[in-house]
Amino acid sequence: MNFRANNPLWNHGSERCRDLRETRKRLREMEGEPEKWILMVTARTPTNIAVIKYWGKRDETLILPINDSISVTLDPNHLCTTTTVSVSPSFDRDRMWLNGKEISLQGGRFQSCLREIRARAQDLEDKKKGIKIKKEDWQKLHLHIASYNNFPTAAGLASSAAGLACLVFSLAKLMNLKEDNSQLSAIARQGSGSACRSLYGGFVKWIMGKEDDGSDSLAVQLADEKHWDELVIIIAVVSARQKETSSTSGMHDSVETSALIQHRAKEVVPKRIVQMEDAIQNRDFPSFARLACTDSNQFHAVCLDTYPPIFYMNDTSHRIISCVEKWNRAEGTPQVAYTFDAGPNAVMIARDRKTASLLLQRLLYNFPPQSDTNLDSYIIGDKSILEDAGIKDMKDVEALTPPPEVKDNILPTQKSKGDVSYFICTRPGGGPVVLSDETQALLDPLTGLPK
Amino acid sequence: MNFRANNPLWNHGSERCRDLRETRKRLREMEGEPEKWILMVTARTPTNIAVIKYWGKRDETLILPINDSISVTLDPNHLCTTTTVSVSPSFDRDRMWLNGKEISLQGGRFQSCLREIRARAQDLEDKKKGIKIKKEDWQKLHLHIASYNNFPTAAGLASSAAGLACLVFSLAKLMNLKEDNSQLSAIARQGSGSACRSLYGGFVKWIMGKEDDGSDSLAVQLADEKHWDELVIIIAVVSARQKETSSTSGMHDSVETSALIQHRAKEVVPKRIVQMEDAIQNRDFPSFARLACTDSNQFHAVCLDTYPPIFYMNDTSHRIISCVEKWNRAEGTPQVAYTFDAGPNAVMIARDRKTASLLLQRLLYNFPPQSDTNLDSYIIGDKSILEDAGIKDMKDVEALTPPPEVKDNILPTQKSKGDVSYFICTRPGGGPVVLSDETQALLDPLTGLPK
Repeated sequence: MNFRANNPLWNHGSERCRDLRETRKRLREMEGEPEKWILMVTARTPTNIAVIKYWGKRDETLILPINDSISVTLDPNHLCTTTTVSVSPSFDRDRMWLNGKEISLQGGRFQSCLREIRARAQDLEDKKKGIKIKKEDWQKLHLHIASYNNFPTAAGLASSAAGLACLVFSLAKLMNLKEDNSQLSAIARQGSGSACRSLYGGFVKWIMGKEDDGSDSLAVQLADEKHWDELVIIIAVVSARQKETSSTSGMHDSVETSALIQHRAKEVVPKRIVQMEDAIQNRDFPSFARLACTDSNQFHAVCLDTYPPIFYMNDTSHRIISCVEKWNRAEGTPQVAYTFDAGPNAVMIARDRKTASLLLQRLLYNFPPQSDTNLDSYIIGDKSILEDAGIKDMKDVEALTPPPEVKDNILPTQKSKGDVSYFICTRPGGGPVVLSDETQALLDPLTGLPK
Repeated sequence: MNFRANNPLWNHGSERCRDLRETRKRLREMEGEPEKWILMVTARTPTNIAVIKYWGKRDETLILPINDSISVTLDPNHLCTTTTVSVSPSFDRDRMWLNGKEISLQGGRFQSCLREIRARAQDLEDKKKGIKIKKEDWQKLHLHIASYNNFPTAAGLASSAAGLACLVFSLAKLMNLKEDNSQLSAIARQGSGSACRSLYGGFVKWIMGKEDDGSDSLAVQLADEKHWDELVIIIAVVSARQKETSSTSGMHDSVETSALIQHRAKEVVPKRIVQMEDAIQNRDFPSFARLACTDSNQFHAVCLDTYPPIFYMNDTSHRIISCVEKWNRAEGTPQVAYTFDAGPNAVMIARDRKTASLLLQRLLYNFPPQSDTNLDSYIIGDKSILEDAGIKDMKDVEALTPPPEVKDNILPTQKSKGDVSYFICTRPGGGPVVLSDETQALLDPLTGLPK
């Protein structure tokens, strides 16, 4: 991959400039001042949602899972992390900013990723900029990293997966690594397990691997996002009353205490992986939906079988499931799949656009926004689904009638407003990309600090 | 068992009366009028709560389970069914009243019990009353049955277990069966699986059995209620927003669709049964609590692993678990066990009275009654626990301070009033008894109709 040719950050030198820079460099060196050049790479990486779940590690440090998992990559236009990584001899330590706020890089997981990438860094020469970095120099050079999520970080929307994948991907480009995305995924995995699946777009499998060193525990692409492009994804961001158990400590406790998790990992998941690969290959929505729903439910069953029990879904999550299940049953074949990660948010996958607009009507009927909420901020992402559903304003929401599968009118108390914070409409999307537009960089090219 | 000697219904005859009755009988026969005698038995049977759960049948008709289960019988003073069964040649069909309302006896489960009991009925002679019933006559004689629960029938408090056990027990006494309670439990089992465990007080095991005809699938007593009499039980009757899946259809669906239920039944439960028997034998509360909690959670995990998933616990159930778990962890050893049946109600078992009063303080702090609720109707059953907790009125409830294990004060929104309908304070209790006090009969001894 020749990304440098596309990256203007690397290409704005000229013969005359070079002479000038060389002169300045010599002057600075004479004055004992460090070199001022800054090299930067900006990349964007998607989040992903598992449809066959990862839950449980066989190695906590290397982050090696007890079973394979499969995910759908979400469209980065609606959910992604953008990261700018930069290197300069003038940086005196590694620093990182997340959403504009400086955070510590001391955590073992960040350190694992930085160590693994530096170990694979290559010689780099930018003749136009007059910069030459030997592979061993990367060990001494410090980094500035700025990362930004285009969605709420704490909302349980796999921000760490996108974030760590983006960190690894952008650093690999900066340091001129030869590894392909699959090999990079094994590094991202050490930052956050599910991050490895964000190295590809479309449909991705994380192979658990067999090696003790984790070298074969990596992501492969099953199909790209164009393979099955009718699918539409609606995410309900559900308001949570209680602080949740982190997935790291949750899956640790499950492995230690659940009497069902090993049976799931060894007997149930391997069969489902094969079936899910087939369902994706054949664009077989009924099988895809059945597998996604049952596997999500089983993951939450294992959480409940953990001691003390872990509850990620709440009453609102349960009501969303009931709404989808009732509709699927009424239609005789699945219209929508649902899956829940380590939190109450529902990720719903509709078989096509028409179904998605019918789903959105049902969701808005059951979970209307609070009176003071603007519809425009209640349905975000791909708003064209809302247009398809024929909903232009709050009056249209209030005019929604019960769907035919609902026999009894829902009581006002059951239509409690505010149980869902907002909905995101999106679709399966592409993998990581380098952003060559310098204006999208999150660090100032002169200071190396957040813009 | 010689219950007739204790039953005044059978003993109020005298020589003179007998002569009178004989005369009347002959007169009626001459007039073609049916005999007017009515024989009655009234009995009281407890409910029970499983601490190792029954979920899943291997035979739907005979109600044969896929694993053993263990329960604690609840004190019938607080939760029981009272049933009066009566027979008379003047009854023209079998009839039944539940809580004063006539219900159909046509259901297969009632019919199974009636058939099995009639098949085992014995000759009966009441010389004083001048009544003689040959065993074959029971096939022709009709029954009137009245049943009453001293607790809300629809609240998910095992009313069918107590009800079917009481029906079988009282009919067995009426029809002079020779079978002991364990053999009767195999009949009650065919009415409602968990009913078989209500044939004994204290701690009861339902052995799943191996025979195809179910003859060895019956209840045995592990220990009576005096064996471990420090235990105190507090039941939180939780308000439910949604109609629940019946346990019959729920467990059917679990057997059909859960990928975990067979592993639970074959690999997990057998070990837990042995451990729970030991824990009860040794009055080992930490083991008892750990087993009861994990097994309740695993049963609900299997429900979640069912397709479509079944949710019996709701957010209030989850918060009760969190409250107990937090306290147990803070104390370093379990103070309270919890278990949930096919509904959101929590059954909490405290290690002793002192612990129970501390639990009640925590429950009232987290789940205060609604402003218009009388404390006297909010805490029912053994109110002495409330006295021990030093709570006399609503002012005392409002004055409760956060328990030490709660670091942050609970926000007003989290202390939502009305999530719990009421609490019942009780304890392990005794098995079925015949009530010899005629005033407790639910049928009029002259008309055979509900009083």
